[in-house]
Amino acid sequence: MTEIKSIGIIYSPYHSIEDMPVQPKGASGVEGCVILAEKYVDGLRDLAGFSHIYLLYSFHKATRTELLVTPFLDRQTRGVFATRSPLRPNHIGISVVKLKRVEGNKIFVDGVDILDKTPLLDIKPYIEKFDAVPESTSGWLQASAREISKKRSDNRFG
Amino acid sequence: MTEIKSIGIIYSPYHSIEDMPVQPKGASGVEGCVILAEKYVDGLRDLAGFSHIYLLYSFHKATRTELLVTPFLDRQTRGVFATRSPLRPNHIGISVVKLKRVEGNKIFVDGVDILDKTPLLDIKPYIEKFDAVPESTSGWLQASAREISKKRSDNRFG
Repeated sequence: MTEIKSIGIIYSPYHSIEDMPVQPKGASGVEGCVILAEKYVDGLRDLAGFSHIYLLYSFHKATRTELLVTPFLDRQTRGVFATRSPLRPNHIGISVVKLKRVEGNKIFVDGVDILDKTPLLDIKPYIEKFDAVPESTSGWLQASAREISKKRSDNRFG
Repeated sequence: MTEIKSIGIIYSPYHSIEDMPVQPKGASGVEGCVILAEKYVDGLRDLAGFSHIYLLYSFHKATRTELLVTPFLDRQTRGVFATRSPLRPNHIGISVVKLKRVEGNKIFVDGVDILDKTPLLDIKPYIEKFDAVPESTSGWLQASAREISKKRSDNRFG
């Protein structure tokens, strides 16, 4: 067991799970603001030079674990590690978002698929040389980008 | 504070921090094996259809936090959130690795930049539609891919 702590709060227009986009690509143009606890503000130096960042956060509304889940994009149950479901053993989420600007301890981002007032765990720069995957296959997930952008979550993870 | 638990162990050829590649692109061809605790094995269903996965893990050798760090790829201090340094407030690391095969509770991967016997926290599928960033800028990090592939870490995070 390791203890992790919230280091800030992610604010978004999504006040309930029901109205959230399933993933960032469905959240393009959706602005959010990350407010980092003042004591960590020195850690933001140089961040503004990156166009994209990873946000790591707590799925704070997820209260249980299910090893088999039915994803929003599917009708069949899938292994939880083959999905982005919040119902994982450790309730940690990651999203790649576009960094708009940093003002003091506030980080303005675009493409947020995160619930309002979500506890922030970490910020990491997206570094193309490390993170980009030129070709990949996505298993069961065959939904088109257009389908994804239309999908909204429901209350199945409440 | 939230408790997170190790759900498995990541095995790699890197027995000490000194000999590790700095990031996965420096680790191409380096094979590793993730052994998931038996109780979570049902969660691996459908994972084999994905070519790449995120591993989330604990930087278990990092014992302190520094808000300003000198990255391996640089000579200047940078804000920790603009780097992948382990010395972050929450000692959580993420790496994108290539999935080779799944055998029971063993996941064989390629491109490992992770210390041997690192505690695993989560496995998530890499989903191009969600995670790919077509164009990005990487701020201070101007090292060429070739430089990165040659870089090895030293003991500054011990």
